[in-house]
Amino acid sequence: MSLSNGWRPIRPVILAGGAGTRLWPLSTAARPKHLLPLLGTQSLFEETLTRFGDGFAPPMIVANQAQEADLRALAPDGAQLLLEPMKRDSAAAIALAAVVADEGELLLICPSDHHIAEPDGFRAAIERARPEAEAGRIVTFGIEPDHPSTGFGYIAAGAGEGVRPVVRFVEKPPVERAEAMLAEGGHYWNAGIFLASAGTWRDELQAFAPEILKSAREAAEQAVADGPVLRIDAEAFARSPSQSIDYAVMEHSERVSVVPVSMGWSDIGSWQALVDASIGDADGNALHDGVLALDCRGNLVRSNGPKVALIGVEGLVVVATHDAVLVMRPDQAQRVREASDWYDREKAR
Amino acid sequence: MSLSNGWRPIRPVILAGGAGTRLWPLSTAARPKHLLPLLGTQSLFEETLTRFGDGFAPPMIVANQAQEADLRALAPDGAQLLLEPMKRDSAAAIALAAVVADEGELLLICPSDHHIAEPDGFRAAIERARPEAEAGRIVTFGIEPDHPSTGFGYIAAGAGEGVRPVVRFVEKPPVERAEAMLAEGGHYWNAGIFLASAGTWRDELQAFAPEILKSAREAAEQAVADGPVLRIDAEAFARSPSQSIDYAVMEHSERVSVVPVSMGWSDIGSWQALVDASIGDADGNALHDGVLALDCRGNLVRSNGPKVALIGVEGLVVVATHDAVLVMRPDQAQRVREASDWYDREKAR
Repeated sequence: MSLSNGWRPIRPVILAGGAGTRLWPLSTAARPKHLLPLLGTQSLFEETLTRFGDGFAPPMIVANQAQEADLRALAPDGAQLLLEPMKRDSAAAIALAAVVADEGELLLICPSDHHIAEPDGFRAAIERARPEAEAGRIVTFGIEPDHPSTGFGYIAAGAGEGVRPVVRFVEKPPVERAEAMLAEGGHYWNAGIFLASAGTWRDELQAFAPEILKSAREAAEQAVADGPVLRIDAEAFARSPSQSIDYAVMEHSERVSVVPVSMGWSDIGSWQALVDASIGDADGNALHDGVLALDCRGNLVRSNGPKVALIGVEGLVVVATHDAVLVMRPDQAQRVREASDWYDREKAR
Repeated sequence: MSLSNGWRPIRPVILAGGAGTRLWPLSTAARPKHLLPLLGTQSLFEETLTRFGDGFAPPMIVANQAQEADLRALAPDGAQLLLEPMKRDSAAAIALAAVVADEGELLLICPSDHHIAEPDGFRAAIERARPEAEAGRIVTFGIEPDHPSTGFGYIAAGAGEGVRPVVRFVEKPPVERAEAMLAEGGHYWNAGIFLASAGTWRDELQAFAPEILKSAREAAEQAVADGPVLRIDAEAFARSPSQSIDYAVMEHSERVSVVPVSMGWSDIGSWQALVDASIGDADGNALHDGVLALDCRGNLVRSNGPKVALIGVEGLVVVATHDAVLVMRPDQAQRVREASDWYDREKAR
């Protein structure tokens, strides 16, 4: 749909390729984070789809082919599902969307596994970003930092009001650098959300990552269409370099802007992040069905099956699956990787 | 075996009929507590068998028929397995053993699910008790209380040294009464361990619980023998009143003595009791294979399958099965029943 004045709705491009072990034992390669009902009853993927209802074009979903059944069951009418035969990181995924879309379409690149508590703030920022994107810019959405996180990349904004040019991208910094940026101001977390036309994406990929664009084009041309599903050609796609869009394009392009946005954003990148994003009950517990808490305060419990009973405990994260259990202080969330690696070793014995 | 001077080895009678929900979710009707490896790698039942090796006659094991396979696999050569078709409490179980045994045999009645850290102390007490039992007394083994427990029955001992007459049995008391008995001295916990000849048991059952003795005799006479197994007749056994031996006999008999015994005894009647009986590692954690503890202190973890990872937590009991998880402060162990009841309701939904 496009109006006679040339206006057309923005097409969300939902990147659903991640897996991640930081939410072990609930998230695994077979149960990726975006399909888990971590907050409330919806999965983060469903929450993402809901966010892009009225006013948006049907989404493109770029995902691994292993997740076809799960994603088809959830995708709305009109959605296109681009199934990758193997992982090639975000630049290749965005390149696929850019070559499949019409050149003039505005593509809103958005991860499938982030939480946005205030979607109205997001929509307002998208509207502020639209004229810049229509003018050929790549607009990034910058999250105002509230602490010197070392887990995110940062975007240094140039002078100005509203949508501002990007001075530089900063990869995940050491804590001293993060503290300095927080003190200085004008630095935003890079949430991996971008608005640009398909044509702009193609131009910038051509300029800075031509091999990625070329293999994406070949992989899409040789893809097999099956209703709403486009099965990307494995041989061509395998030739693509595997790079993040930040590394492949954003750090080089002169056409990047940033729109600061306040929207209650979290990447739910750890159990601590989920604790922070959760709304507890009167006792501060964030529980769900199948959990009993007697005389407990401030606990987060997630289970994908086992019944969980807590008695007289406080300030814990408890995560249960049928074959693994994690009990943790949330401020130790960065050590979950060690537990996940240990679990893999135990299972391999 | 009996010597020419009339001495014969004592026959242990191991009562393996219990189930119990106080160690939920690990113990259930299908996985009774005595078959669980709660301390180390042996189950409490195996520990009980080991305790009665050299110097004892082969044991009689009185158990529910549902556990036949498990118990047959563990029972030593020469053991007799008396399989009850239904639960009829301890008086009926002891009556079965008393009618199956020779009249002159000394039967040492012993639960299958208790822990005795110092078996030498137990053996010494058995030897002190033997002459009294040979003289026709029922000798109970009294545990010196170290706190005013309201979870055990008490035995009030009369004056004297060594084996003493019993003045009275006290059912599980309110805390004030328990404190008074502790302060007064001469009161012991009733561990449910008794030494008496088969003939004495028969006499006292005849005097105070004749229906129990009668149905046990009929049920044993009509039992079906199958190698080491005696399948007790269901119709006759069903007629037996269901009473504890304390209620049926001990509280009435004039022939009861008590031998105080110091043997590191625990009935492992709660997760707190298991914590108390466990020996922790250098960090005070009592773990087992398949458990990871990073920067943790003073935790007890038991799992019958799921891998369990703890990070940065202290002083917890964590129990995992494939379909239920308990996380608890051990001083809340008396509330496990609530969790077990909740679990049963959840499963029935």
